[in-house]
Amino acid sequence: MTIPQRLSALRAEMRTHGINAYIVPGTDPHASEYMAAHWTEMSWITGFLGETGTALITLDEAFLWTDSRYYLQAGIELAGTTVQLMRESDLDCPSIPQWLCEKLGANRRQALGFRLQNHSDEGNAAADNTPTVGLNAEMYSVNAYHDLCATLQASGIKVCTCDLISPLWTEERPAIPQGPLYPFDVQYAGETVASKLSRVRAEMAKKNANAMLVSALDEVAWLLNIRGTDVEYNPVVISYVVLEQDRCTLFIDPPKVNDQAAQYLAQEGIDVKEYTAICDYISTLSGTILYDGARVNEALYEAIPATCNAIACPSPIVALKARKNEVELAGVRKAMLQDAIALTRFFYWLEKEAFAEQRTKSKEQRQSTSVAEKCLTECDLMDKLHSFRAMGEHFTDESFGTIAGYKGNGAIVHYGATPATCATVLPEGMLLLDSGGQYYDGTTDITRTVWLGGDIPAQAKKDYTYVMKGHIALQTIRFPKGTRGDQLDALARQFMWQAGINYGHGTGHGVGHFLGCHEGPQNIRLNHNPALLEVGHILSDEPGIYRTDQWGIRTENLITVVPVPQTDEATTNDQWLAFDTLTLCFYDTNLLDLSLLTQAEIDWINAYHQQVYNTVAPHLEPNIAEYLRKKCQPI
Amino acid sequence: MTIPQRLSALRAEMRTHGINAYIVPGTDPHASEYMAAHWTEMSWITGFLGETGTALITLDEAFLWTDSRYYLQAGIELAGTTVQLMRESDLDCPSIPQWLCEKLGANRRQALGFRLQNHSDEGNAAADNTPTVGLNAEMYSVNAYHDLCATLQASGIKVCTCDLISPLWTEERPAIPQGPLYPFDVQYAGETVASKLSRVRAEMAKKNANAMLVSALDEVAWLLNIRGTDVEYNPVVISYVVLEQDRCTLFIDPPKVNDQAAQYLAQEGIDVKEYTAICDYISTLSGTILYDGARVNEALYEAIPATCNAIACPSPIVALKARKNEVELAGVRKAMLQDAIALTRFFYWLEKEAFAEQRTKSKEQRQSTSVAEKCLTECDLMDKLHSFRAMGEHFTDESFGTIAGYKGNGAIVHYGATPATCATVLPEGMLLLDSGGQYYDGTTDITRTVWLGGDIPAQAKKDYTYVMKGHIALQTIRFPKGTRGDQLDALARQFMWQAGINYGHGTGHGVGHFLGCHEGPQNIRLNHNPALLEVGHILSDEPGIYRTDQWGIRTENLITVVPVPQTDEATTNDQWLAFDTLTLCFYDTNLLDLSLLTQAEIDWINAYHQQVYNTVAPHLEPNIAEYLRKKCQPI
Repeated sequence: MTIPQRLSALRAEMRTHGINAYIVPGTDPHASEYMAAHWTEMSWITGFLGETGTALITLDEAFLWTDSRYYLQAGIELAGTTVQLMRESDLDCPSIPQWLCEKLGANRRQALGFRLQNHSDEGNAAADNTPTVGLNAEMYSVNAYHDLCATLQASGIKVCTCDLISPLWTEERPAIPQGPLYPFDVQYAGETVASKLSRVRAEMAKKNANAMLVSALDEVAWLLNIRGTDVEYNPVVISYVVLEQDRCTLFIDPPKVNDQAAQYLAQEGIDVKEYTAICDYISTLSGTILYDGARVNEALYEAIPATCNAIACPSPIVALKARKNEVELAGVRKAMLQDAIALTRFFYWLEKEAFAEQRTKSKEQRQSTSVAEKCLTECDLMDKLHSFRAMGEHFTDESFGTIAGYKGNGAIVHYGATPATCATVLPEGMLLLDSGGQYYDGTTDITRTVWLGGDIPAQAKKDYTYVMKGHIALQTIRFPKGTRGDQLDALARQFMWQAGINYGHGTGHGVGHFLGCHEGPQNIRLNHNPALLEVGHILSDEPGIYRTDQWGIRTENLITVVPVPQTDEATTNDQWLAFDTLTLCFYDTNLLDLSLLTQAEIDWINAYHQQVYNTVAPHLEPNIAEYLRKKCQPI
Repeated sequence: MTIPQRLSALRAEMRTHGINAYIVPGTDPHASEYMAAHWTEMSWITGFLGETGTALITLDEAFLWTDSRYYLQAGIELAGTTVQLMRESDLDCPSIPQWLCEKLGANRRQALGFRLQNHSDEGNAAADNTPTVGLNAEMYSVNAYHDLCATLQASGIKVCTCDLISPLWTEERPAIPQGPLYPFDVQYAGETVASKLSRVRAEMAKKNANAMLVSALDEVAWLLNIRGTDVEYNPVVISYVVLEQDRCTLFIDPPKVNDQAAQYLAQEGIDVKEYTAICDYISTLSGTILYDGARVNEALYEAIPATCNAIACPSPIVALKARKNEVELAGVRKAMLQDAIALTRFFYWLEKEAFAEQRTKSKEQRQSTSVAEKCLTECDLMDKLHSFRAMGEHFTDESFGTIAGYKGNGAIVHYGATPATCATVLPEGMLLLDSGGQYYDGTTDITRTVWLGGDIPAQAKKDYTYVMKGHIALQTIRFPKGTRGDQLDALARQFMWQAGINYGHGTGHGVGHFLGCHEGPQNIRLNHNPALLEVGHILSDEPGIYRTDQWGIRTENLITVVPVPQTDEATTNDQWLAFDTLTLCFYDTNLLDLSLLTQAEIDWINAYHQQVYNTVAPHLEPNIAEYLRKKCQPI
């Protein structure tokens, strides 16, 4: 089926159901950041393969909302589909609810091919005449669904939940991944399932809850000490949990549970039911039911019996999971060492070997071969780095798609090189490299920016140094307990702000333990986030400066919140916290403008480099250890 | 009447009305920070004269909630009154709603002398049996009232609005102040009433509002370009406004409007009605009515007809008032010059003249006379500073009670010296001086900390320097439009945080123009505040360090938000803002530990001192100008 054929089939379904507009969001039933291919309904109906987008299909038109990162890609992929691109980063682009209210709301009901039998717009329209928007409740969090409903209903638009895609997408639809569930050993997890269940049940008891719905995949994985291979970059298992005070039920496709897994689950006292049985099971619950409105999908919520007391509250698992235990933290340090070994070997290769052949050529020859197949490309760097990481102990996967942004590509914040379009890398100019790994010991995420050769422009040095000053200021700050991340973000920006420079992303995100590379509740952003920074949180520290078509600069370490003792100078009874740096990889000191650094900053860089060398060098081949020694020399 | 007699009379009223507990908050009908004596009902019923507190009277007990600043004072003033002190800063102290729910809520109804006819706690209690809390709706903002009601009603407690104090407090009750209203000339205000009304009406029109209730006194004063003398430190007039699209009505006691004022109001097209007529007037309104739930009192809200569409929204006047116009900003600079002249003369007097007699005595003699009446006290400093300020052009009043905190008293953040208890000041140790003036040109607020003599402890220098580093970091930051104050607060704390030191107040508050010394929506605090910093806002910048029984250090300038052009280095299209310093008074550079300052900080201090000298010296007597020159010498 072509896209227009799919759209046509969907419209036939829409007419049957009396639906004027059908929304296909780019989400899954677990509110995942990364999705299994099974749920790429938005791509199936539009042809757009980008990660972020929402489709809206009316009876005679079709639209795709996506942000500026994907305008180019969408323009290409939507050609010939009849799907129109809605550029949602543009100021004049209406949101989907705005668009629907405008086109379908009161006074506009004749639009969109819907024939009103009664031309009056004033109240009491027969049910059949009410403009109706359809969507699949599984793909909406409770909060997102109810926010949408409130807006649409205020304009007299009805919302109808129904899955119109599954009946159409029967051929060639990827199955829900059937990767095996495997136990995540307590030697890595650091806490038994019994202990976790007990702590979560204690939180439930505070709200007199009989049951709690758990639908986010990283919450299920953390709670039951299980992992899987269902989702790229995320070692999770597609499943749900309903946790009761006396029972814990895992909803999962049976093929995913082999004998060993079944034995493990039985031993931990976890009941197992079919993945699709979740709603039927929820409908048998009674009493008070907790659900996290931001993460639980609307279909599960609708299955809660009306006689239950359904209480929305942030999942207590999110907060517990974010505070890493000692075993997890010790593990992350091991993973960081593996990561550092891989990155040092990579940078050695890049500097000493990758361009060796090209160096023997004249500049003219280099340029003339820069488009030839044998040239080094951004994708080659991604592959090579992956091969070095894959040698690491307990490595399972990358934690996200590596960003290797050469020169101007580094200024595209979410750049992802593809073999078809990636740039050739020459021994000159700036390279931004943002990558991470999944190890049984933990999840890593690191960005380094290096200069590959040639004269360094003064502005490049200034930019790099502003970034480093902010990066250091954040990871060295001491702060009282009770501090939020949004109170600290400006510390990383203050130096570049003085130069009138800013970046359009947050400074830090939470990081999971052998789970999501992004997790909450903690972060360090300018946007308000009421979550406090707590001991055991892992965050990134990644300010950046991006000059369109010139370069992108970002340095990123992972840091963890640690307690620090009161000083003799203390005037209050505050308990004090600080960050401890987990990442163990050198910075490119050639890019520093030393005149902009304070002595304290220079001392910090030198001490960090000493620590990096002492920790990592013993694990490297002698020539690479010597390379690292030079990289870590005091400035 | 004694306090017990007053309590007894109130309890008789409570029994008549079927009220189990009556709350008397320390507020007025205008949500004022400073109140007229007429509304000191809390003090009348408890005997406690502090500024902050709430009384709760049950049928057999009486309580006063106040914070730790007032524990000592309350202990003394409540002695013999039968009123018990509730120490609300203590962690184990219940809030008033908590206390009421605990004592009066379900399962506890037999407490507090209330006789249940039916001993069952289960539903359907006869209306007569429902525990009831009484309060005066005029003294509660709509939000505070509804928050309280929601909590109490969830515990089965009824809330009854009634004024039981006024019928009892008939003798010796101060009248509502009858100071005259006077026009505030547009040469100071910078905008005509017609323009202000038009801008506010435009905001109302965005919400299709027919009328808006204005009850905060500074909003009334700003809107109608009127001022008065009704409230200490605040040049406001006790009154309300109801603003409609075609009418503006001022509710005010007639004696306050003399012929000149009446003529002014008539000329501006403002209708005048009796202060007490406000509720009757509101009850005649129709259509959509805006009110600010945080500022409008519940009694006004209850007067809105049920047929109206009452919409809660932040008062648009607050945002408009906060963005000072060019005339107001130029005025504030004139007021700052007057303030600087007064402060320089004061510090000259303090250093050169105040102790002259004492200097001739030996240390032993000084100590032996330190309690004698002739000695210099904190109150003497307050009076002297007032006398210097009073010489200033357009000075009308202080903008708050001067804080002159000598040595350990400086560590008491809200210290207010009284003649009976104030400390003797000697030519040694630390003095914190926080003061401000009201001038037609604007409102000032400044804190300087100086060392009066003797060896300076190293820790004192470090503390002072940490404070100065934060004070400078905040007023020199450049930031993108869209930044909130809570994102910047940590900039002022970062240096002392590194030493494990913190302070328990915000770093900056908004300041009015010849109005409140504290105004919103802008501030610079750690607490989240969604208000953005906008061009024309005036804020304070006042970090501090407080060492109990040793010293308090705070330096405070007023700063205003100004636009700055993009730099050549800019990478984004952000519009950039910065702070311009308004205050013009030297710092005590003897207290600086130069080893802790960067060259940029030293340069800033020297440049500021140069500006202070150049601006202020021409207005000083030669000997004082010479004194200022020495104080402003480069460090």
